[in-house]
Amino acid sequence: MEKEKKLSLILFSGDYDKAMAALILANSARELNMKVSIFFAFWGLCLIRDPEKMSLEDKTVYEKMLGMTAPKGPEDLPLSRMNMAGIGKAMLKQMMEDQDAPNLSAFLKGAQKKGVSFYICKLSLEIMGFTLEEMIPDVKIMTAKDYLQDALEADIELFI
Amino acid sequence: MEKEKKLSLILFSGDYDKAMAALILANSARELNMKVSIFFAFWGLCLIRDPEKMSLEDKTVYEKMLGMTAPKGPEDLPLSRMNMAGIGKAMLKQMMEDQDAPNLSAFLKGAQKKGVSFYICKLSLEIMGFTLEEMIPDVKIMTAKDYLQDALEADIELFI
Amino acid sequence: MEKEKKLSLILFSGDYDKAMAALILANSARELNMKVSIFFAFWGLCLIRDPEKMSLEDKTVYEKMLGMTAPKGPEDLPLSRMNMAGIGKAMLKQMMEDQDAPNLSAFLKGAQKKGVSFYICKLSLEIMGFTLEEMIPDVKIMTAKDYLQDALEADIELFI
Repeated sequence: MEKEKKLSLILFSGDYDKAMAALILANSARELNMKVSIFFAFWGLCLIRDPEKMSLEDKTVYEKMLGMTAPKGPEDLPLSRMNMAGIGKAMLKQMMEDQDAPNLSAFLKGAQKKGVSFYICKLSLEIMGFTLEEMIPDVKIMTAKDYLQDALEADIELFI
Repeated sequence: MEKEKKLSLILFSGDYDKAMAALILANSARELNMKVSIFFAFWGLCLIRDPEKMSLEDKTVYEKMLGMTAPKGPEDLPLSRMNMAGIGKAMLKQMMEDQDAPNLSAFLKGAQKKGVSFYICKLSLEIMGFTLEEMIPDVKIMTAKDYLQDALEADIELFI
Repeated sequence: MEKEKKLSLILFSGDYDKAMAALILANSARELNMKVSIFFAFWGLCLIRDPEKMSLEDKTVYEKMLGMTAPKGPEDLPLSRMNMAGIGKAMLKQMMEDQDAPNLSAFLKGAQKKGVSFYICKLSLEIMGFTLEEMIPDVKIMTAKDYLQDALEADIELFI
């Protein structure tokens, strides 16, 4: 029997369109019965913030500022280009709806339901001052070394 | 005999400099007799738009707007940074000319002539409202699953 | 005995945060006894410019302009987002200091000390008008073909 194939993604970017690309690849890979890991780092953390669980407790001034200005969850992410203060994004979302394409939140929920493993970069979490409690459920903390060991088992590795 | 090596690229970005990086890697890989696939997704579609084949027929208002404002073909792409309303790009293009480096259109034609396989992301095409007829010739439509199966055969996979 | 594992990175981006991601991965891989190559291309060259070795000799007007406006060394790089004319970056650097995380220059020196191989893209160097003498020591020039042959030996390849 052939060894199970595996896809390993780092989602570094906090852009709506790039997050969508990552989740479409992840979901498609699961439909092909591949194993899938997403390692959320830096701005990628914004995608898995739970908008209803923001906390300002035990944070420095800078951590509070970042927590308040950085995007809060999937639908709050900007486009990587032509965002035009949100007009471009609203347009894109409408165009997706016209094509009956699900939105980013649906892709995100789908990924977890389909069994994509979500990992969060330990150092990014610390530097940005977020806590695991402010993130969506079922996300595990991983160091860069853990990521590398997980990626070494993969057949496709991408940095998005 | 050793198995043929293969390079698999996703070009997600619509930046002049990133598209150039992708095409230089693709052309160099062909010169090493590697197989090469480029999967154009999202903004990457702008690179393979044929500027003379734009159509507004059967498009929604948003699709028309996007079609008119998004870059039309290789020489219309902006730089990923220091674009400065086109001044930075004009400067870079002049510097490339001073070094006798070919421009992006030449790299693009070279890639197709050298046998690089061009694939376009089905979902991106639908969401952005472009049609295959508006693209340069010899581009095939592929789903995300097709991409993954193609990438599984590759030795190097990059997301650009 | 198992074959040594290898990580191959292209650093195309000239952003502070992306350069940090690249160096954290590179340093972590070395700590796992993996071989590591970083191929600096385009804006990535800004990271390895030696701020004290800038030269204007034998340069065209455009090369001088680019040399003066592009970031000079690690601490001069902007953030990929929320840079806000440097305020965002200053904030991030303070937050890193609060967590006792080293800054980008320290990660860069650490990488060379740990034995990460630094390669510079020949064509990028020529187009941007930089010389090897303006870069930090122990960087070798490589063509795109050399990069591909190096990456073919790697287990993980990422474009950052």
